[in-house]
Amino acid sequence: MFQSFEVTSRPEQGPPRLAALRAELKAEGLDGFLVPRADAHQGEYVAPHDERLGWLTGFTGSAGFCAALMDVAGVFIDGRYRTQVKAQVANVYTPVAWPEVSLADWLQAELPNGGIVGFDPWLHAVGQIEQLEVALKGSGIEMRRCENLVDRIWEDQPAPPMFPAKLHPLEFAGESHADKCARLAEDLRNKGEAAAVITLPDSLCWLLNIRGADIARNPVVHGFVILHESGAVDLFVAPEKLADLADHLGDGVTVHEPDALLGYLETLAGPIRLDKTTAPVAVADAVGDRASWGDDPCALPKACKNEAEVAGSAAAHLRDGAALVELLAWLDAQAPGSVTETQVVAQLEACRRRDNALQDISFETIAGTGPNGAIMHYRVTEETDSTLEEGHLLVLDSGGQYLDGTTDITRTIPIGAAPLEAKQAFTRVLAGMIAMSRLRWPQGLAGRDIEAIGRLPLWMAGQDFDHGLGHGVGAYLSVHEGPQRLSKISTVPLMPGMILSNEPGYYREGAFGIRLENLLVVRPAPDLPGGDAHRKMLHWETLSFAPIDTRLVIADMLDSAARDWLNAYHRDVAEKIGPRLSPEAKLWLDTATAPI
Amino acid sequence: MFQSFEVTSRPEQGPPRLAALRAELKAEGLDGFLVPRADAHQGEYVAPHDERLGWLTGFTGSAGFCAALMDVAGVFIDGRYRTQVKAQVANVYTPVAWPEVSLADWLQAELPNGGIVGFDPWLHAVGQIEQLEVALKGSGIEMRRCENLVDRIWEDQPAPPMFPAKLHPLEFAGESHADKCARLAEDLRNKGEAAAVITLPDSLCWLLNIRGADIARNPVVHGFVILHESGAVDLFVAPEKLADLADHLGDGVTVHEPDALLGYLETLAGPIRLDKTTAPVAVADAVGDRASWGDDPCALPKACKNEAEVAGSAAAHLRDGAALVELLAWLDAQAPGSVTETQVVAQLEACRRRDNALQDISFETIAGTGPNGAIMHYRVTEETDSTLEEGHLLVLDSGGQYLDGTTDITRTIPIGAAPLEAKQAFTRVLAGMIAMSRLRWPQGLAGRDIEAIGRLPLWMAGQDFDHGLGHGVGAYLSVHEGPQRLSKISTVPLMPGMILSNEPGYYREGAFGIRLENLLVVRPAPDLPGGDAHRKMLHWETLSFAPIDTRLVIADMLDSAARDWLNAYHRDVAEKIGPRLSPEAKLWLDTATAPI
Repeated sequence: MFQSFEVTSRPEQGPPRLAALRAELKAEGLDGFLVPRADAHQGEYVAPHDERLGWLTGFTGSAGFCAALMDVAGVFIDGRYRTQVKAQVANVYTPVAWPEVSLADWLQAELPNGGIVGFDPWLHAVGQIEQLEVALKGSGIEMRRCENLVDRIWEDQPAPPMFPAKLHPLEFAGESHADKCARLAEDLRNKGEAAAVITLPDSLCWLLNIRGADIARNPVVHGFVILHESGAVDLFVAPEKLADLADHLGDGVTVHEPDALLGYLETLAGPIRLDKTTAPVAVADAVGDRASWGDDPCALPKACKNEAEVAGSAAAHLRDGAALVELLAWLDAQAPGSVTETQVVAQLEACRRRDNALQDISFETIAGTGPNGAIMHYRVTEETDSTLEEGHLLVLDSGGQYLDGTTDITRTIPIGAAPLEAKQAFTRVLAGMIAMSRLRWPQGLAGRDIEAIGRLPLWMAGQDFDHGLGHGVGAYLSVHEGPQRLSKISTVPLMPGMILSNEPGYYREGAFGIRLENLLVVRPAPDLPGGDAHRKMLHWETLSFAPIDTRLVIADMLDSAARDWLNAYHRDVAEKIGPRLSPEAKLWLDTATAPI
Repeated sequence: MFQSFEVTSRPEQGPPRLAALRAELKAEGLDGFLVPRADAHQGEYVAPHDERLGWLTGFTGSAGFCAALMDVAGVFIDGRYRTQVKAQVANVYTPVAWPEVSLADWLQAELPNGGIVGFDPWLHAVGQIEQLEVALKGSGIEMRRCENLVDRIWEDQPAPPMFPAKLHPLEFAGESHADKCARLAEDLRNKGEAAAVITLPDSLCWLLNIRGADIARNPVVHGFVILHESGAVDLFVAPEKLADLADHLGDGVTVHEPDALLGYLETLAGPIRLDKTTAPVAVADAVGDRASWGDDPCALPKACKNEAEVAGSAAAHLRDGAALVELLAWLDAQAPGSVTETQVVAQLEACRRRDNALQDISFETIAGTGPNGAIMHYRVTEETDSTLEEGHLLVLDSGGQYLDGTTDITRTIPIGAAPLEAKQAFTRVLAGMIAMSRLRWPQGLAGRDIEAIGRLPLWMAGQDFDHGLGHGVGAYLSVHEGPQRLSKISTVPLMPGMILSNEPGYYREGAFGIRLENLLVVRPAPDLPGGDAHRKMLHWETLSFAPIDTRLVIADMLDSAARDWLNAYHRDVAEKIGPRLSPEAKLWLDTATAPI
């Protein structure tokens, strides 16, 4: 499914739907109902079946929620969506600046005499509701589990996704699902736990070496897993999705209908590990006091890719890099003022699809030219589509899903001649990206401990950017994967095999945006002569290969080590990507990778 | 009191004292007793009265504890003291590698059938005992409060310190103690707390603008404070210490005998704020369920120095810098092989004492030459005293206490010609120190978030050092002050007025050590042209001025910005310190501060 630029939001649908919801509230004796943008698996993307927030309010952003009360309906959105929400929702909805205003504070202000607020226990993590209840203590406001009231009034609600799952071959997975189950079961036994409930679909898919298509852009299967300390697995996924997989799954995996989960859990002996940050309230209720709170047992093993996964990712990146270079070569041949953002997105996706290996793009491509580049999570639509004009910078952030790996890469391209301050900022962003790429660091440090290295050149000029330096990336799985991050919020030590993005940026509101992004994999660093013999150090191996636009680089602002890195990187790009290109693109690449 | 190099430890005293302690254990029906190196105020230095660990075991290190059971007596020491403990304790004591082996695990191994372990509730923080009890759950081992059994057998135990307190003038404090009490009381009221118990002596001294001499090197008064939400203060300090301070303290401060504290607490209405990490168990017991756990209310206000405190510190640093330069000039005139570490320490202290303003040194001077320089917490004694030989590096880490400020500065000095690898490592350490000194960073970040900047040049060469980059420093108070730190363990945001050390180092065991240290104060950074207008940024102002030995610098390894910083710093040193020097030292300084 190609990326669509359609405007799907129609504000005028909001008021009658809100009125219908309020009739349900009244019938249920509730004073309010929460409508999150979430399914039972707490992922970043949801299936059309779960697009309740968009259907009800018109707001289609990737994060937010609605608290619908009888007299007021707050739409809680973060800083990225302050403008978008105004355009998308009718005035029966009140945008609320979140997280500056917390849900608990807002509820207490709007329900000064207390009240009962309903929520669907499948759509909220138990930790989230616990925190809310703590914050509401003494307010007279009660949070009450109830049926999903939006589902009741949404007459043409799409069915839950029902796409066939497929095998993820051992060649790419690098470890059989039986071995993974045995390895994780040992961890359960060591902790004295009888079982773990796994509710994240990418954990399920990683553990069982399967992939699916239940949501866009992420090759996952919706379902739940119970992993027993014996290594046996109960899999709660609609059996029709697994039609071709009986041989693969084998005797160790027992398949159940998804709606059998709660009944099964009620009879299971504890302790049962649950992750408070992701397990739905409904699951936690069924487990009750047999819960042992801890991390999803797949989280860390999934993050630390094995050699097959790293090799697969590297192969996927070469394929993907060639597609991006074809696009860049094409783009450079277009005169300023002659193409628009949507044309770039469509052309890039066409370049990726020329290779039959592409399964899907890994997220909606961000193509923001001129001032649009300064909007960090810009998604172009027919209404915002802008022409690439002389003097613009184009921020192009995109990726692909391949059977052997997931990619995510950002380049910033000048359209005609770029202003000096944009070149200066670009060079600082590049200097930070290179400093992080070149880094060696002692084992045991987390993303938080090293992120500053990628920001330093901007800081020294009084500049910075308001997003993390990088996020984890899966192996033909989610393009945003935890727990590894290059961010102030991540204190999980970086470990060999973890794949992360390195993506510093700079955003001048109303003027231009800059972002550069490569994916990197953590590797043990080889010893250096004169280095500390006893000290285990790590470094990065770069996975992404595509030229960085040297027309935006002010060479004198880079030190010689950074210039050497850039020239060596471009030699690698020419060598690895060149042979995969059309003759025209190959010619273009030779110029684009010339040393500075 | 000049620094002493005496060997105070005599291992043969240990066995009879341990036997006497065991007799007390038996009489009390206990299976063990804990002997920490701590007083009721959990500071880094203790008075001779509280040197129970050293008296009992012979071990005189600055951290550690003894767990004395009937059959075995473990002396728990960290990595710094593995060698020292072997020389200092008799073989009735068993050194235990701590924290690798936890006390709870060790107790369970040594008392497999359970037992009762006594402890003095004044000498352990409540959080420490709580953690221990959690770890001992199910072991059958009970922790029991009891009298201090060492005090019972220590016949010539020195009396508790009883030195007169003195006023800390407003000129240096910058804020009256009445204003401080009112400001902190407001914070208590905002949190709904009736009072706070303050048990840290530097918090007590800061709050009431007094200083004392109850322990070496730290100008503090031992005692306790109860700050009420009204702003009124109850002060539990031996009244004879406060003889001259009645007018200063005024009506808002009521003085009590220290032993009245617990009785007073028992009658006080709650909630009462206590800091779990520092409040003694005895105090927590008296407060019971009226406790409101939180930070010492003085901690953050004390850390954020006002303009008078920063100005005082700057003045103290110029005075102290002149003393250090006199020493460096003297040292440079001595031939290799002609002086020893203790002579350097004595000469440096003499240089500091020439100015009558010195109240005390701020910690025992570290002077380690050659291989001794690689021992991070080296304290020279008559037994270890080594001659400064040709080819050595000398690490010299020292500081002074002045009425207007506390200093702490480290320089590394070549004795004759230095080996290349030492120069290379020195230049990396210097590059890291300069990068941190030059740093600008966005407000809101903690030491953890920026520490990497000072380590990067070492990391890139496969090197690192095993201590934090820096610690907080008080204003004529403790030379180690929290919560501000440049360390992985500090997530407290850095705020204007905080004073920290910037002290990267490098240690090659058996060969040489390197450390460079300046004190810096956090300041709002001025806007830069082209910088983000809306972004609040911070930077450092350097307080310490003394030359950095350029004979150890390989100029080509520094980038031009670092060389410019070093030359500008040396111009400042010459300008600020030069006029304070003897003619010989002034001549020496002119050469030492020549540009590279």
